Amino acid sequence: MESFREIGARLSNWNRWGPDDERGTVNHITPEAVVAAARLVRTGRVFDLGIPFASDGPQPGGARINPVHLMRDTGANQDFPGGFHFADDYIFMPLQCASQWDSLAHVFYDGLLYNGYPASEVGPRGAGRLAIDKLGKGITGRGVLLDVARLKGVEWLERGYVITPADLDEAAVRQGVTVGRGDILLIRTGWRRVFTTTGDSRRFMDGEPGIGLQCAEWLYEREVAALCSDNWAIEALPGEPDEKFAVHCVLIRDMGMPLGEILDFEELAEDCAADGVYEFFFSGPPIKFANAVGSPVNPLAVK
Amino acid sequence: MESFREIGARLSNWNRWGPDDERGTVNHITPEAVVAAARLVRTGRVFDLGIPFASDGPQPGGARINPVHLMRDTGANQDFPGGFHFADDYIFMPLQCASQWDSLAHVFYDGLLYNGYPASEVGPRGAGRLAIDKLGKGITGRGVLLDVARLKGVEWLERGYVITPADLDEAAVRQGVTVGRGDILLIRTGWRRVFTTTGDSRRFMDGEPGIGLQCAEWLYEREVAALCSDNWAIEALPGEPDEKFAVHCVLIRDMGMPLGEILDFEELAEDCAADGVYEFFFSGPPIKFANAVGSPVNPLAVK
Amino acid sequence: MESFREIGARLSNWNRWGPDDERGTVNHITPEAVVAAARLVRTGRVFDLGIPFASDGPQPGGARINPVHLMRDTGANQDFPGGFHFADDYIFMPLQCASQWDSLAHVFYDGLLYNGYPASEVGPRGAGRLAIDKLGKGITGRGVLLDVARLKGVEWLERGYVITPADLDEAAVRQGVTVGRGDILLIRTGWRRVFTTTGDSRRFMDGEPGIGLQCAEWLYEREVAALCSDNWAIEALPGEPDEKFAVHCVLIRDMGMPLGEILDFEELAEDCAADGVYEFFFSGPPIKFANAVGSPVNPLAVK
Amino acid sequence: MESFREIGARLSNWNRWGPDDERGTVNHITPEAVVAAARLVRTGRVFDLGIPFASDGPQPGGARINPVHLMRDTGANQDFPGGFHFADDYIFMPLQCASQWDSLAHVFYDGLLYNGYPASEVGPRGAGRLAIDKLGKGITGRGVLLDVARLKGVEWLERGYVITPADLDEAAVRQGVTVGRGDILLIRTGWRRVFTTTGDSRRFMDGEPGIGLQCAEWLYEREVAALCSDNWAIEALPGEPDEKFAVHCVLIRDMGMPLGEILDFEELAEDCAADGVYEFFFSGPPIKFANAVGSPVNPLAVK
Repeated sequence: MESFREIGARLSNWNRWGPDDERGTVNHITPEAVVAAARLVRTGRVFDLGIPFASDGPQPGGARINPVHLMRDTGANQDFPGGFHFADDYIFMPLQCASQWDSLAHVFYDGLLYNGYPASEVGPRGAGRLAIDKLGKGITGRGVLLDVARLKGVEWLERGYVITPADLDEAAVRQGVTVGRGDILLIRTGWRRVFTTTGDSRRFMDGEPGIGLQCAEWLYEREVAALCSDNWAIEALPGEPDEKFAVHCVLIRDMGMPLGEILDFEELAEDCAADGVYEFFFSGPPIKFANAVGSPVNPLAVK
Repeated sequence: MESFREIGARLSNWNRWGPDDERGTVNHITPEAVVAAARLVRTGRVFDLGIPFASDGPQPGGARINPVHLMRDTGANQDFPGGFHFADDYIFMPLQCASQWDSLAHVFYDGLLYNGYPASEVGPRGAGRLAIDKLGKGITGRGVLLDVARLKGVEWLERGYVITPADLDEAAVRQGVTVGRGDILLIRTGWRRVFTTTGDSRRFMDGEPGIGLQCAEWLYEREVAALCSDNWAIEALPGEPDEKFAVHCVLIRDMGMPLGEILDFEELAEDCAADGVYEFFFSGPPIKFANAVGSPVNPLAVK
Repeated sequence: MESFREIGARLSNWNRWGPDDERGTVNHITPEAVVAAARLVRTGRVFDLGIPFASDGPQPGGARINPVHLMRDTGANQDFPGGFHFADDYIFMPLQCASQWDSLAHVFYDGLLYNGYPASEVGPRGAGRLAIDKLGKGITGRGVLLDVARLKGVEWLERGYVITPADLDEAAVRQGVTVGRGDILLIRTGWRRVFTTTGDSRRFMDGEPGIGLQCAEWLYEREVAALCSDNWAIEALPGEPDEKFAVHCVLIRDMGMPLGEILDFEELAEDCAADGVYEFFFSGPPIKFANAVGSPVNPLAVK
Repeated sequence: MESFREIGARLSNWNRWGPDDERGTVNHITPEAVVAAARLVRTGRVFDLGIPFASDGPQPGGARINPVHLMRDTGANQDFPGGFHFADDYIFMPLQCASQWDSLAHVFYDGLLYNGYPASEVGPRGAGRLAIDKLGKGITGRGVLLDVARLKGVEWLERGYVITPADLDEAAVRQGVTVGRGDILLIRTGWRRVFTTTGDSRRFMDGEPGIGLQCAEWLYEREVAALCSDNWAIEALPGEPDEKFAVHCVLIRDMGMPLGEILDFEELAEDCAADGVYEFFFSGPPIKFANAVGSPVNPLAVK
């Protein structure tokens, strides 16, 4: 069986967009693709795919916590001329605690980041290369939802279920949609519902359904620009034995594909099922945190 | 002379969208307006209007600081099966330290928030009403840039310069654009350049050019949905004598208009001047921070 | 039955040390008492009563979280002349998440703080009066441990067990020690062990054994300077029906007594049991956080 | 001239207290020394040597900022049975932003920490060895103040002034005090006054007077347990040409001596000058932050 390193080498996009590239597969989105994507806006319905950022979010604690929101001012004890009062607030949070983009500096192996940058580019002061602000103009273009949970007729796919290329093909055929160059692909596993229906952050974070390594080639061939999911780590967990996050390794480090995680496709999926239209204009700009390896996001899908 | 309270009472949108409304002038954006806005995408050029979020940002310290970005993991000291390494990071910051939306809970006077909610809705735990996540699906639609600095032929308008309705009209005429219902209006003062050319955060934050109270009526009549600027507080500062942030009071608390501040219109303005097109598709979703009075943002303008 | 308000009024120390006092019962510690306390150092054994400040601490999440410790520098990616490397770190935490002093601004009722200061002294920017830095020179003097868990022959007193004045008297007699003016009293409930033996933060924080309202008078009569415990809130919880933290109300707001919580008396208690000496020199200075209502602490007991 | 590496090798305490030691020169403090130190308490006067922790502290921004103190609760919007109200707060800060202990993991060179531990013990998750909590029972014992600024008759020693062994000897003779085994030595440079009189954090942090490398041997010979100063980095800055923080390298990494910085000796120094007594009981326990390389502190000197 082919190792993830072999797969990664085969699907590598290093140098495809030059030795200084820091945008990876987002380069697949051409201006023409953006224009075509805007033409998909036909009814003006807007769907926000970000989950709430709150203390009761999906992080059970540990390496990542839920956001801590604190007020610096509430308007109390203020006495400005004219009567003006203001409120102001602070946030402390992991950049990947809720709806998020993984930057291309988030994952690496064998001492090299995407495009061959040395791992030393990531250090205590952050990422010198491939930081999330390099994707500041993105990620916007044609979005396509593949609703695998609906395809299988389940509330959610089971923990550890490995989504295959056949699943994606079948969903696309059933939905009457194709996935192609420059698309932002949204895969719905239903896993978001585990958290919204049970409120159990430990269960939500203890494994998940998701794509397997075989899907990497499927994404590569179609020249997908970015991949999003309603689980927390894109890939099936537990995954391959004796390996950790092999799909991340190939997608981020070899292919240079940004990953959007912990998104909410529920309302959008209902709408797509109702009107049979699974394509839309997608706009998911990261906040331009300098040297950061991730960013919170609230992507919009506009139909 | 009419007081800001009188102006606010005259331009009030309270109850216009019902007693439970928490979206204010964003209600001006209809689905039809979103469809029409998408038709403005003609070349596929994307402009990101958010500034970098970094320790050398525009906050000189005090009530608000620049973001503090800290790495939780760099990939060092990791030994996972297969060779996977990952980096992870945290942020601590005021929600209004750089490019930002002011929520409708940000400002109030006389004990009442927008739509008549009591000021007690804002407390130590945040905003029970009018928090920024209520605008999660927005703010997206037609964007229009009025480049007042260019109109006046200056690098930037002077500190304290009060932009008038006549200025806005003149800019619109000169640019061949009209501002109407549901538009997201971007007013360029050039003030962003004070920071980018001098790096002097104290100077940037010590006053600014911006609109005066008279513009509130202009915005009200045109049914503008949201207002953005490249300064840090929309309104001219120092402003009216003996009053503090009177424009904020009227726009946010009486009219219910979200304000976008500390944005960067430089690249967009160059492009608009070059092709003479000052309208575009605008997408600026806030991050859905629960109970928060503001949000960082990186809006996209797509032409 | 006497209400906590009546008890508080009877035991009030307001104005006892003048209208501007912000130190409360710490005033009971005279220079002579400090000298006498130092004479208790006979063997040079030092006991640290603070618990570790770590991500696996006793906070289960919610209003208070465990400390989040992040490295700003690890020495990686540094290249200074001579070969110097340094590490540096940040902390984000509630000031009362682990071993802590409650300042006299921490609790109030009926619109008034200790010594009659209005509750408005505490606002979004912190405490204008009675902040923890007002106790910067304290809290140091004679410490006395009353080991109620040992008296009762249990690992720990049960959740909700109300320690009575009789318990305190009995422990003092059994231990051969008296409690008097200016003493810092440490009451051992054993509750710390619930966390150290089970690691169950929810159980640790869901109620506790502790003193009841009757002990307030006992403390008042003896002119105790400060009270410390190995539970998280001094008082028995659940406590009096239909009242919340009545003991805090009386001790902090009426008597002006700082409270030390989530301390670890295990090693000290073993030593005291072994040599029969339950008095020692106590040194527990708060960190001088301006306007803060609490402080982390690591008190030392020196025998 | 001897390099700092040669000096460090000559003064090394590695293995002096065994291969697992993490306390360094604090081992010089014997129980007998603690008893003797307590005997120095003669009048009961207490001096707190920590500076205020506040937003207007000595950090001008950059790698370290001043503490950010935020209220989680102020008592507003609370309605508990009985009338109880409480305030609660959070802090975000560098562990070395104000009065602080440097742990023995703070500085290293040539890939090794104190006692020969590999530098890899310090990583993104903190210090596996030599963290500040290893000094939890310390640092307490006999304190001695050497007031070099007073010796020289100046408000403060000049930036870059190198304190020599002769200066220390002369101060000791003039003051009639000796420095010996297990002492916590406080060296007063007056530099604290630069900040308190000018409020200029940039000036305070841009260099300082302090000890030179020659003093390392002086401290080694006397078996000093810990060193404190009222400057921000113990050593003269700018220091040796072409080297960075050579004194830190020798004291922390070779000798294993914890350093206390940004302390305030003003009130204590006045008192010592008045009564001619420059020795006292010193109690400066760090907060036990797990894996941390520093800790805020508010040491007490008791005379």
